[in-house]
Amino acid sequence: MGRLAELFDPETVAVVGATDREGAVGRAITANLRDRFDGEVVPINPGRDEVLGLECYSDVSSAPPIDLAVVVVPPDAVIDALRDLGEAGTRNVVVITAGFSETGGEGADRERRLRAVADEYDLNVVGPNSLGVMATPNGMNATFGPEHALEGSISFMSQSGAFITAVLDWANEQGIGFQDVVSLGNKAVLDETDFVREWGDDPDTDVIIGYLEDVDDGQGFIEAAREVTDDTPIVLVKSGRTDAGAQAASSHTGAIAGSERAYEAGLEQAGVLRARSVQELFDSARALAGLPEPESDGVAVVTNAGGPGVLTTDAVGDSTLEMAGFTDGTIDRLAEAMPDEANVYNPIDAIGDADVDRFGEALEIALEDPNVGSAVVVAAPTAVLSYDELAETVIDELEAHDTPVVTCLMGGGRAREAEETLRESGIPNYFDPSRAVSGLDALARFRDIRERTVDEPERFDVDRERAREILARAERRDDNRLGVESMELLEAYGIPTPAGEIVDDPDRAREVAESIEDDVVMKIVSPDISHKSDIGGVKVGVPDDEVYDAYEDLVARARNYQPDATILGVQVQEQLDLDAATETIVGMNRDPQFGPLLLFGLGGIFVEILEDTSVRVAPIGEGEARDMIDEIQAAPLLRGARGREPADVEGVVETIQRLSQLVTDFPAILELDVNPLVAGPDGVEAIDLRLTVDPDELADDTEEP
Amino acid sequence: MGRLAELFDPETVAVVGATDREGAVGRAITANLRDRFDGEVVPINPGRDEVLGLECYSDVSSAPPIDLAVVVVPPDAVIDALRDLGEAGTRNVVVITAGFSETGGEGADRERRLRAVADEYDLNVVGPNSLGVMATPNGMNATFGPEHALEGSISFMSQSGAFITAVLDWANEQGIGFQDVVSLGNKAVLDETDFVREWGDDPDTDVIIGYLEDVDDGQGFIEAAREVTDDTPIVLVKSGRTDAGAQAASSHTGAIAGSERAYEAGLEQAGVLRARSVQELFDSARALAGLPEPESDGVAVVTNAGGPGVLTTDAVGDSTLEMAGFTDGTIDRLAEAMPDEANVYNPIDAIGDADVDRFGEALEIALEDPNVGSAVVVAAPTAVLSYDELAETVIDELEAHDTPVVTCLMGGGRAREAEETLRESGIPNYFDPSRAVSGLDALARFRDIRERTVDEPERFDVDRERAREILARAERRDDNRLGVESMELLEAYGIPTPAGEIVDDPDRAREVAESIEDDVVMKIVSPDISHKSDIGGVKVGVPDDEVYDAYEDLVARARNYQPDATILGVQVQEQLDLDAATETIVGMNRDPQFGPLLLFGLGGIFVEILEDTSVRVAPIGEGEARDMIDEIQAAPLLRGARGREPADVEGVVETIQRLSQLVTDFPAILELDVNPLVAGPDGVEAIDLRLTVDPDELADDTEEP
Repeated sequence: MGRLAELFDPETVAVVGATDREGAVGRAITANLRDRFDGEVVPINPGRDEVLGLECYSDVSSAPPIDLAVVVVPPDAVIDALRDLGEAGTRNVVVITAGFSETGGEGADRERRLRAVADEYDLNVVGPNSLGVMATPNGMNATFGPEHALEGSISFMSQSGAFITAVLDWANEQGIGFQDVVSLGNKAVLDETDFVREWGDDPDTDVIIGYLEDVDDGQGFIEAAREVTDDTPIVLVKSGRTDAGAQAASSHTGAIAGSERAYEAGLEQAGVLRARSVQELFDSARALAGLPEPESDGVAVVTNAGGPGVLTTDAVGDSTLEMAGFTDGTIDRLAEAMPDEANVYNPIDAIGDADVDRFGEALEIALEDPNVGSAVVVAAPTAVLSYDELAETVIDELEAHDTPVVTCLMGGGRAREAEETLRESGIPNYFDPSRAVSGLDALARFRDIRERTVDEPERFDVDRERAREILARAERRDDNRLGVESMELLEAYGIPTPAGEIVDDPDRAREVAESIEDDVVMKIVSPDISHKSDIGGVKVGVPDDEVYDAYEDLVARARNYQPDATILGVQVQEQLDLDAATETIVGMNRDPQFGPLLLFGLGGIFVEILEDTSVRVAPIGEGEARDMIDEIQAAPLLRGARGREPADVEGVVETIQRLSQLVTDFPAILELDVNPLVAGPDGVEAIDLRLTVDPDELADDTEEP
Repeated sequence: MGRLAELFDPETVAVVGATDREGAVGRAITANLRDRFDGEVVPINPGRDEVLGLECYSDVSSAPPIDLAVVVVPPDAVIDALRDLGEAGTRNVVVITAGFSETGGEGADRERRLRAVADEYDLNVVGPNSLGVMATPNGMNATFGPEHALEGSISFMSQSGAFITAVLDWANEQGIGFQDVVSLGNKAVLDETDFVREWGDDPDTDVIIGYLEDVDDGQGFIEAAREVTDDTPIVLVKSGRTDAGAQAASSHTGAIAGSERAYEAGLEQAGVLRARSVQELFDSARALAGLPEPESDGVAVVTNAGGPGVLTTDAVGDSTLEMAGFTDGTIDRLAEAMPDEANVYNPIDAIGDADVDRFGEALEIALEDPNVGSAVVVAAPTAVLSYDELAETVIDELEAHDTPVVTCLMGGGRAREAEETLRESGIPNYFDPSRAVSGLDALARFRDIRERTVDEPERFDVDRERAREILARAERRDDNRLGVESMELLEAYGIPTPAGEIVDDPDRAREVAESIEDDVVMKIVSPDISHKSDIGGVKVGVPDDEVYDAYEDLVARARNYQPDATILGVQVQEQLDLDAATETIVGMNRDPQFGPLLLFGLGGIFVEILEDTSVRVAPIGEGEARDMIDEIQAAPLLRGARGREPADVEGVVETIQRLSQLVTDFPAILELDVNPLVAGPDGVEAIDLRLTVDPDELADDTEEP
């Protein structure tokens, strides 16, 4: 257990603001604790000697030592209460009281002070504006909610207290149990990252689930979750997925919402399984909490009814799993064991008159097939089939083969008792075949997460000092934007750019052109002219002897277009053979929660019209850079589809990594676009660059990492 | 009611093969009928005087007149039983007996004979291999299943009998009722199209739902469903959606599966709402059965809990609905009625201490907003909120405003009673906000289906006789394939092709080239050479004075490549300006269930790599042709994205319609590809054509439509 062990397993819990006034929150908490908690409950209230039959103390200093304090005093009294607790040596506090940052203005100020006190005394604070916390092994219900959780191995955090109440009511009916439950409240001190770390260290937590509206520190969360998911699955509902939802979440919590694309990438990189609905959250959690890990993606379906068998097969087709192909041995064994009319291929249809023995035999033969990693038992009610006996058989088979099996005993009342039996052995029963398969799918996806290796971002040998100098130029620009004149920035980070330079007189232009073997491309360079082509500011295929005149002409056109434009010069650049090359784009913008978000796509219509892009939170390693390329639909074009020569994909992979390093090294880079990055058969070259820099941030960033 | 009225509302039901032998199907059916049926039950069995206390007749001829007969005799006796029933004047028969086409071979033959007898006597036959039929108003349970359905307004057909048993058990627990239930069995005579028509005419059926593994006659089904869905929604689970599922379905039913893309297009064109799972089927059906139609897509969310409110907003974002924007008046009224901390924008958060009155007031104000077409009430359990009272309030508000409202009373046991109250008023309560929204979404999607106008396919004035002559050429080809030499086929149907012709001597080539203003394109024409470019069989930009030599060269290259190739000549064609044009593809193949399936996409990578295509079952009208274009992701390219001149989209729309007419006029065309159909700013032209023809089919097709 981690540093929050005492929060969930205290010997003594104080309720600061305890009361026996009917309807008061301080009473509900005291009552919940008194009714079930194994340890000592210490009410604290200066106006009372006794609360709900427990001895009440006037203040923290006069009370016995307190491991965990639950604070329900009015908002103005919270800071003092925390200070008293800190002085008295208490380390763990849950602040139930509302009226902090969620109310804005004064409340936000109060929350800052709360954070300062917590810092001063090194307090683990849950909340404020929390429903409370629960732990089932010691019966601690330190919430003011009406529900007690059943004991189980799922630990649950929620940014909505109401959600906890609703879920517990439903979970109790379903027989789903929990280890710890936390209502995160405003997350002034402890947030999702802390609980992920804590539960990752808790041997009694098999699955971590959560309802989140935002993630405070995206990078910290990714790091923590990556470690934890080596053993323990994390399944989250992150609300505000859609534009409408994000707007609602932001008005609800006051949080600045990061972009959904950043969450999608960040949570995936963190190894989190994401559920789109409450139902999916628990369908996954139940499977992950109770079942062994599937060794392969092959699913066997065993049924007594053709139709539901087909529906289950469709659900497998929709998932990341696949129907197992049986070995010849399996098929022979099934053919021998089953009647002639049965289907011995997958899905196995033991047909309508199958009793428990035939069902069990089919399941056993399937589970012994080396291609079967998991199984779904799908049954329709018949006169000859006892669901209760079938449940026992499924439990035996699962235990004998240590292979995950879920059931879909279709029907209502007649499945209830069997469902209960199965649940006690950790086997979830689902009403709908598609939900049964999605439970198995969660197991397989978590196995993949456990098995994946996330390679460390490579540190390329770069010229960081030179990059800093170039970025510092932005300070002299009104809009903090840099353009093609800063291509050396890319060179400093080892990213190839075409030969050439930006010159400010026509003679030098000619010298540069002569140093380049073929004809050149010439472009006007001005921060004030963004659409160069539109004003005739680009000339391609210029032979050496025309370079002088071309220079004069480009400058004249720019002046003509905008007399007061700042003209930095003319870029004279090697002309690339674009026929055999593919234009790609690598971009970055900073997400408020996750930081640098890299984007990759092919140029032109692919990004603008087809929106065919992939994103990752930087820094990333080689594998993730390669995934960014493979993920886009148009990837085959880069890899040489339709008779094209394959582009230098490895060059693109490396460029993405080098840009990842650049934007990680310099938080001052707010936005960056390399567009296009041309990928030809023999290499890649960055042709154009735009970025926005925050010079203040640059000043802060004086340390090498 | 339609021609099957008597099937569901008979006065007399006979059980042919009735028995009181324990465990026999003939007993189960007789018992189910005897227990509940309002009419007369007539057991027929030559060996008994009485079955389960009912007078038993030795044969059909000696029995009283029979409106509906349920046949459970052995397979060999079924045909005679049908004949006897036909002779006795019975029109409606359910054949429970199995051992027909589902067993192949002899069974398939038996099914053909069954069909012949049904035809001879004009019998409405359900099955064979059916679980039976049910109708709830008269208490008729003519199945051998263990469940009786509750009464309701949903009529339900299923191609799987087991599925019916499972669903009824579950539905009874959920309080979901049915009007009629049919187990379709092998669909030898009556199929889904018949029941869709029947229930479409039934004033007591509000919603038609079904589980189907295939659709027998796609075109007939589309026609029937389009009519029915003017009033009555149809929601279907069609299994075998995925490749794995289709394979499983085909091995289960022996049906030749059509392609999923054909089903997807065909069912959508038919106006069917498609559910992906059993749960979605009933979530939709419950909303459609009980709620009024939403006037707009704006959804109001009313909650006492921020988090679930955000989740619901996400679900709205995922659906085809949108969050309603409230008028200023609504916001003022809400601000007055709600406490300061409440959120009066959508989602309305009446906050945790909201009682029923506040909840009701918020809902009332929301429903009076002109932008609100439907509402979701999302509640978390609190001490101050009575779910039972909330249910009554929701019912009152729905009735007062005739606007659909669904609820999501989160939690388990404490929501049960309220759920029951709501259900009795036709309001579905859902556990998960996403399911609540998907219920409303089904209402809105059905409203759109009701309101849509499917325009009649236009009949263009074409030269059908000439087309037939050209198609007849395929008879002289080994592989029944026609190519570019048959471009006149397109001309006969009014589809523009470039100027030029196929010539068989170099002088004529030159004449043709001279008649064309610019340079020409020349291509070798040979059914034996499919990749012309690869062998140098295409020359572009040929000036008139080089045409003669080019002809000789093309023929020489072809001979050189394949000495025995049939060379039909050389195509001399106007060279189009392709720079300003976009290449598109229009194709067709025939689906075994739905017939001609049209495909549209942009050429090259768009079809081959991005798989960006749209499909429709032909014939189609102008609106559907235009939808085919708008549906592809790359459509903006045709409409003039990124500074391009817009292509002649109307020309593409018309070409798709003309091809639709062509493939409908000639079922002999098995496959057709116009690739490319070049769309420029000033018009479209078909450049190349391939098709496969079945000459036998052509011979049959001698009638004008």
